Amino acid sequence: MSHFPSSTETTSEAPAATSLSPAADPDRLLPADPGTRAIARELLARVEDLPIISPHGHVDAAMLELDTPFPDPATLLVSPDHYVTRLIHASGVPLENLRVGGTSAVEPRETWREFAKAWPLFDGTASGYWMRDSFEHVFGLSREVNAENADALFDELDAKLKSPAFRPRQLFKDFNIEVLATTDDPLDDLAAHAAIAKDPSFTGRVLPTFRPDAYIKFAAAGWAERVEKLISVAGDGLTGYAGYIRALENRRQYFVEHGAVSADHGVRTARTLRLDTTTAEALFEKARRGEATAVDADVFEAHMTYQMARMSVADGLVMTIHPGVFRNHHTESFNKFGADTGHDIPFAVSYTEALRPMLEDFGTAPGFHFIPFTIDETAFSREIAPLAGFYPSVFIGAPWWFLDAPDAMLRFRGAVTETAGFSRSSGFIDDTRAFCSIPARHNTSRRIEAAFLARLVAESRVGEARAHQIIVDIVDAAPRRAFKL
Amino acid sequence: MSHFPSSTETTSEAPAATSLSPAADPDRLLPADPGTRAIARELLARVEDLPIISPHGHVDAAMLELDTPFPDPATLLVSPDHYVTRLIHASGVPLENLRVGGTSAVEPRETWREFAKAWPLFDGTASGYWMRDSFEHVFGLSREVNAENADALFDELDAKLKSPAFRPRQLFKDFNIEVLATTDDPLDDLAAHAAIAKDPSFTGRVLPTFRPDAYIKFAAAGWAERVEKLISVAGDGLTGYAGYIRALENRRQYFVEHGAVSADHGVRTARTLRLDTTTAEALFEKARRGEATAVDADVFEAHMTYQMARMSVADGLVMTIHPGVFRNHHTESFNKFGADTGHDIPFAVSYTEALRPMLEDFGTAPGFHFIPFTIDETAFSREIAPLAGFYPSVFIGAPWWFLDAPDAMLRFRGAVTETAGFSRSSGFIDDTRAFCSIPARHNTSRRIEAAFLARLVAESRVGEARAHQIIVDIVDAAPRRAFKL
Amino acid sequence: MSHFPSSTETTSEAPAATSLSPAADPDRLLPADPGTRAIARELLARVEDLPIISPHGHVDAAMLELDTPFPDPATLLVSPDHYVTRLIHASGVPLENLRVGGTSAVEPRETWREFAKAWPLFDGTASGYWMRDSFEHVFGLSREVNAENADALFDELDAKLKSPAFRPRQLFKDFNIEVLATTDDPLDDLAAHAAIAKDPSFTGRVLPTFRPDAYIKFAAAGWAERVEKLISVAGDGLTGYAGYIRALENRRQYFVEHGAVSADHGVRTARTLRLDTTTAEALFEKARRGEATAVDADVFEAHMTYQMARMSVADGLVMTIHPGVFRNHHTESFNKFGADTGHDIPFAVSYTEALRPMLEDFGTAPGFHFIPFTIDETAFSREIAPLAGFYPSVFIGAPWWFLDAPDAMLRFRGAVTETAGFSRSSGFIDDTRAFCSIPARHNTSRRIEAAFLARLVAESRVGEARAHQIIVDIVDAAPRRAFKL
Repeated sequence: MSHFPSSTETTSEAPAATSLSPAADPDRLLPADPGTRAIARELLARVEDLPIISPHGHVDAAMLELDTPFPDPATLLVSPDHYVTRLIHASGVPLENLRVGGTSAVEPRETWREFAKAWPLFDGTASGYWMRDSFEHVFGLSREVNAENADALFDELDAKLKSPAFRPRQLFKDFNIEVLATTDDPLDDLAAHAAIAKDPSFTGRVLPTFRPDAYIKFAAAGWAERVEKLISVAGDGLTGYAGYIRALENRRQYFVEHGAVSADHGVRTARTLRLDTTTAEALFEKARRGEATAVDADVFEAHMTYQMARMSVADGLVMTIHPGVFRNHHTESFNKFGADTGHDIPFAVSYTEALRPMLEDFGTAPGFHFIPFTIDETAFSREIAPLAGFYPSVFIGAPWWFLDAPDAMLRFRGAVTETAGFSRSSGFIDDTRAFCSIPARHNTSRRIEAAFLARLVAESRVGEARAHQIIVDIVDAAPRRAFKL
Repeated sequence: MSHFPSSTETTSEAPAATSLSPAADPDRLLPADPGTRAIARELLARVEDLPIISPHGHVDAAMLELDTPFPDPATLLVSPDHYVTRLIHASGVPLENLRVGGTSAVEPRETWREFAKAWPLFDGTASGYWMRDSFEHVFGLSREVNAENADALFDELDAKLKSPAFRPRQLFKDFNIEVLATTDDPLDDLAAHAAIAKDPSFTGRVLPTFRPDAYIKFAAAGWAERVEKLISVAGDGLTGYAGYIRALENRRQYFVEHGAVSADHGVRTARTLRLDTTTAEALFEKARRGEATAVDADVFEAHMTYQMARMSVADGLVMTIHPGVFRNHHTESFNKFGADTGHDIPFAVSYTEALRPMLEDFGTAPGFHFIPFTIDETAFSREIAPLAGFYPSVFIGAPWWFLDAPDAMLRFRGAVTETAGFSRSSGFIDDTRAFCSIPARHNTSRRIEAAFLARLVAESRVGEARAHQIIVDIVDAAPRRAFKL
Repeated sequence: MSHFPSSTETTSEAPAATSLSPAADPDRLLPADPGTRAIARELLARVEDLPIISPHGHVDAAMLELDTPFPDPATLLVSPDHYVTRLIHASGVPLENLRVGGTSAVEPRETWREFAKAWPLFDGTASGYWMRDSFEHVFGLSREVNAENADALFDELDAKLKSPAFRPRQLFKDFNIEVLATTDDPLDDLAAHAAIAKDPSFTGRVLPTFRPDAYIKFAAAGWAERVEKLISVAGDGLTGYAGYIRALENRRQYFVEHGAVSADHGVRTARTLRLDTTTAEALFEKARRGEATAVDADVFEAHMTYQMARMSVADGLVMTIHPGVFRNHHTESFNKFGADTGHDIPFAVSYTEALRPMLEDFGTAPGFHFIPFTIDETAFSREIAPLAGFYPSVFIGAPWWFLDAPDAMLRFRGAVTETAGFSRSSGFIDDTRAFCSIPARHNTSRRIEAAFLARLVAESRVGEARAHQIIVDIVDAAPRRAFKL
């Protein structure tokens, strides 16, 4: 089963002609100018069928280990996707009606009806584009979603999701995923990853990622208990701050041994600080006593970002940071539905001065890879591209979150390429927990790369033959290089 | 008399062929790529002749009530338009020569000559585009403005402006304005609005807007006296801060009863604060004693923005804010010519943290509509679209001031659509005191919406039939929805 | 010898057909849409052969005075160009291998090989575009650079550089440079400029520029000694702060007498401050005692920016500022290789409030010209265009450094034109020390101006005849006007 026919196939067999969805157009997202589109089409053909490399995301490894069947369409595609639920919420639908955060005030079918009614809201959005693409190419729906056919589509999708062709492992194969990284708690035993690695019937790689935020942010609920446990489990008998640092180093080593290639940090800002041990220790103990202020928390986080860089230099884990998001902006919704429910809102952050203490010490350290992501797109041309254009350790994080969308990705390439070329970027990151959207997201990215490069060729800024090499490098070699795959 | 023929009419009758002005091109502002242009042309045809809905602006209601004839061309089109006078001033012409701020150092004809000489400065600007469009489609000039024909054009325009066809009420009808909101002092008796509402011969709606800035900003000249009067007129006998709050509530109610649908706030920043009454009262009294600092003024303004939101939740007035402008940057010009004379300069403002206290409490309040405008376009993708993509109360303010121009409007759509779609925006706002430019401004906006949507269609991101619905929604339904019209 | 044939010539004689380089395309950088491209081609033809006016850059006047032969290709084109060396460094090559900062760990040929191997890194970058353009049009290379032909190209270029056709004065003539401004130390005797001015065989103008940073920034190495010398040489016998100010005034006068038209300021931020003399004097003496803090240094710099404006009003030197760059971000590289070695990184700066004290006092001063440059492109539409759209003294600095690249220049025009038109910009600035890249840089800029204007014509926003006037004005008249040439 080929869920995702390449544009070439589509053109020659023309099966898309039966679909009225814009997602059936083999030229979707390519530039409208006919000459440029022709160049883009050729570029896309080079990469559309390459395997998917996904070095950062939020899929659950156990799902792939156990090949857990997917739930109903609403529980799979709507409720957990905060890209989707937030916009329906903005239109006036309570999050309860969408079964957000594990709530169950209504039946899944009712949630699906809300989604179907809200479907026009998604026109022009990245989420809408991915969903339509998945409906067409993963689920093979022949009809556009709308309030009238909501029930019929729910049933059609539900039946498909119950079929063997839609089990996670089969989709993993059909999606042509070569590498998929998950995001994991430092104390996770990584048993699912180990089981997958040992299973000869599973051909792709599923790698863990070390994500220690909840052990670093004083304000995270349960921080003190979590840290206590970390030290006792992995601190080699050391106590306090020394045990904490040792335990983090040990758990990173454990992740390395289980195939991890990177550590990810959801820092509030990009600030880094070199504190002496005495000062760091004092802050740490103050927090354990429950006395730390918000300023203390920021200072300690900046110190720990520096420490994490030091550890990355030592153990080789690629370091990624995701700063500049105000998490859980609406407390009432957070209290009712938990985190990741659609009200994490970006704010402006700076990188040049913030990263300096760390880059001064580790910016040219052999083998160190540091990838800053941002959702403040003003930082691309002003700070991130110039930093990556000098420091061998710095790779430009792909457009993230609200920016991993067609126009925003084009703006990204326009902002960084003239300063840093193509060699300094991380490759595409889907960063998603929506497993079924993975091919749509990577395909979107490949189309945009083709669109951008086609313009450079049409404007005689890059030779066409060279552009064919570059697009393969961007799609395939860049993530392998940046993430040491 | 059809001042503003639709593109269809223009095409079929081809009267524009006699004009050499770029404004005569029925395809003006549409994308150059022929395929995309064809799509845009069809989209534009759907909306070009729809009535104008102008929910925020600065036209004087009394002018419409009394049908006051317009003055000479310089006094109508040049002197009061700080978009126009500032650029002539930048070229070295003193504001005196332009009769700015009611000064009369020279005759109007002399000011018109300065304008005609300066006309080439406006190539590529939004003001230039609107003026050329008005010259072509409102005033029917057959010649481009230049220094040589300045006097002749002055006479030609002056004669037209003296004719019945150019009286405000006739133009209001010819412009096809359905709703026009003015901006009014809280103590205004709104007699002009009442007279218009009662007049059966006037078919459009002219609505007041509550704008309390001068009663909130401690630094506004005459603040203490103004507040004194407000309390005594509308404070229900209460005194001090309690009387002040009560009086504002009462005057809002008066506006509601006179048809107002919104309250507008020219805040310095987007900051909001929940002060307890004792603290607010202390600041208020400190200001009445003339002892408040600039910091006090900012804190009190943030508190009052929160209070205004609270009142909007209660009385249903849509709340709009216009932050981030350094008013009266050049003191010498302010002293000589007053406010709104071309030297209000934007600065960077943040929204995510600033609006949080207010959105925490009112962000999901039923019926609350909050529309932040910005002239810091970096906030669109980073903060405003994500906020509007979650909070049902938040609508994305249309591009404002320096940003209500073709390229900036395209950048706006490119920045917000992928995150928030089309349903979360306020609809176009002309925000103008230049009555005769209203059709040009709305027409410009409609062309840009067509251009943006046409690209999405050409790239198979939105289906063409759906795009035809969306453009009608954007142009017509969006402002009605956002402003409760 | 015509190094730089115009597009018209190229088209008619078609010699480019023999080259496979994208740089041989006479339509390079013009928009892909055929209709718009045709308009752009005509616009470009108007200006492609106009003389080069370069009012700000870093070429050495003595090189032109003495007609010093250029060194080998690596020493000329690679080692001193931090745009080039930084990206090779980012790919993992130590700066030693590139002979950066006058080091000589390897032979030039070895550095050239590193460059040739690294050449693909430059695809899509501004540096790569300029170099390819120079290879094609200045050096007449018929082959693309690559690791295999590195030695052969080194020899071919080296032979050319030793020939009389490649001596600085011949190239100056061939490049059709009319005006070239250098950047000079206030105590420079400007002998080279004087010699060139007196030499009847040298037809262009080579003008000095007053650049006092090292005498203003307390933290500049050797500040105290340098200031000491300045006062003793030019202070008219006055001592301390009074002598310092007098000496700066005197040296500016000396520069004026030697043809200078501008003074340039590499300020940390755009901040300006009016300190009273006592306060300024106290800071100055504190710094001479070596006791000044970083805050003191910032305050004094802001004060001196104001003072420099005052002096510009008096002596007529155009004032340019280049703020917002964190210089020497990586201390280890700075210690080993010195300044300007690729790790100056931009950061966000604001202009509206920062420039106000200065603009309040001098913003409308007759004859005062003030040109802020920026590498924070968010400031263009938000602050710089609005400022230049009111103050007769303010001209919008052309895109600078990381922004003087095709896409960034288009974004610049898109950001400023709708607010400030075309009359308020400074004209193109190459700001380069890479003499041989000057024609490529100016040609790039002219192509982008043609591309931008062609779109406005295609969208009927500017008439075609008028666009032909505007492009000549932008390319030729604007720099003459802004820099008083």
